[in-house]
Amino acid sequence: MKKIGVLGTGMVGNTIGTKLVQLGYEVIMGSRTATNEKAIAWKEANGEKASAGTFEDAAKFGEIIFNCTKGEVALDVFKMAGPENFDGKTIIDIANPLDFSQGMPPSLIPQYSNTNSLGEEIQKLLPKANVVKTLNIVNCEVMVDAKKSGGDPTMFMSGNSAEAKAEVKAILNQFNWNDIIDLGDITTARGTEMLLPIWLRTWMATGNGYFAFKIVQ
Amino acid sequence: MKKIGVLGTGMVGNTIGTKLVQLGYEVIMGSRTATNEKAIAWKEANGEKASAGTFEDAAKFGEIIFNCTKGEVALDVFKMAGPENFDGKTIIDIANPLDFSQGMPPSLIPQYSNTNSLGEEIQKLLPKANVVKTLNIVNCEVMVDAKKSGGDPTMFMSGNSAEAKAEVKAILNQFNWNDIIDLGDITTARGTEMLLPIWLRTWMATGNGYFAFKIVQ
Repeated sequence: MKKIGVLGTGMVGNTIGTKLVQLGYEVIMGSRTATNEKAIAWKEANGEKASAGTFEDAAKFGEIIFNCTKGEVALDVFKMAGPENFDGKTIIDIANPLDFSQGMPPSLIPQYSNTNSLGEEIQKLLPKANVVKTLNIVNCEVMVDAKKSGGDPTMFMSGNSAEAKAEVKAILNQFNWNDIIDLGDITTARGTEMLLPIWLRTWMATGNGYFAFKIVQ
Repeated sequence: MKKIGVLGTGMVGNTIGTKLVQLGYEVIMGSRTATNEKAIAWKEANGEKASAGTFEDAAKFGEIIFNCTKGEVALDVFKMAGPENFDGKTIIDIANPLDFSQGMPPSLIPQYSNTNSLGEEIQKLLPKANVVKTLNIVNCEVMVDAKKSGGDPTMFMSGNSAEAKAEVKAILNQFNWNDIIDLGDITTARGTEMLLPIWLRTWMATGNGYFAFKIVQ
């Protein structure tokens, strides 16, 4: 099993990292400092397959990288981690370019949406890595167990490398995602990132965050 | 049964108008001129409950109005039709603010998306009308028969008037939509209009336009 680096110590990074350890992966959680309290606590709670370090440590250790940072800081995090440390690796980008500056619910950061996407910006920053956009359209507990939506929903996947997408698909299957649509290259991440506004409003209207999208066809 | 005005003579207007006549409604199709060939042909094909006229004729005759125009011209059409002719009426807005100027697939017109929507702009132009955004997220044959998606998909609805939304819900039911989520006021149209980018990319990836979205919860 490949070693995995998780960038980000928030609820998403914690949930993804914990699930991956449960599945048997060796996982490092990376943050700005090597002594981040949340990362240390996560490591302590998850046994010997779990470790913690800087973003750079996570980038060097991981053979597959999960980007669980906030969209507004994601590019800075990759720069901090050292772009060359991602060469040849699969990056699973689950961040969303949310803009909280215009009030609630958040909109999307204009320069990373509509005619662009965060996924594409990460791919441009790391031209030798293989960025795959996926999982960004559900809450983190549904990410790691599609059945928590109560059904068999659809997950989308976008990326330039067929090999990287096959690797991601295998992990998605481990997360109980069985209906997976490969949308095409990384520019198709524009579509999935623009699902956030309807995700947010469906959540607000129904009061239930444990849902997912299904393509009925 | 209320009289219905359909604005627009394209495939969407034609399909919606035809279905409404089949359901027993009196329907007028409105266009820029009273002698539009497509509108006249539609009227000839649909019997005595069908008529054709200008946008203004359609706005005056209709007690419920379907906006089936292209998003980029929708506001001009409402101005041409006479904004006062929509006072107190329910407007079912199924147009999308697609921007074809940046290449294919289309993006969304920046000033009508993300922190704004076409639905909101129409409501601002017609403050005494009740705009309800719905049906804009599927192809026109699925609009008038949800079962053509092959399942029981979800339709979203956005609007400021509960009464207008109840009226629209009854029509949606006649179009075989049974799983309807009321997202809230017209600002929630931002969410449904931003579904177009994923609709387009799913269509391009699968080659099948007869699909719809289902909220699995």
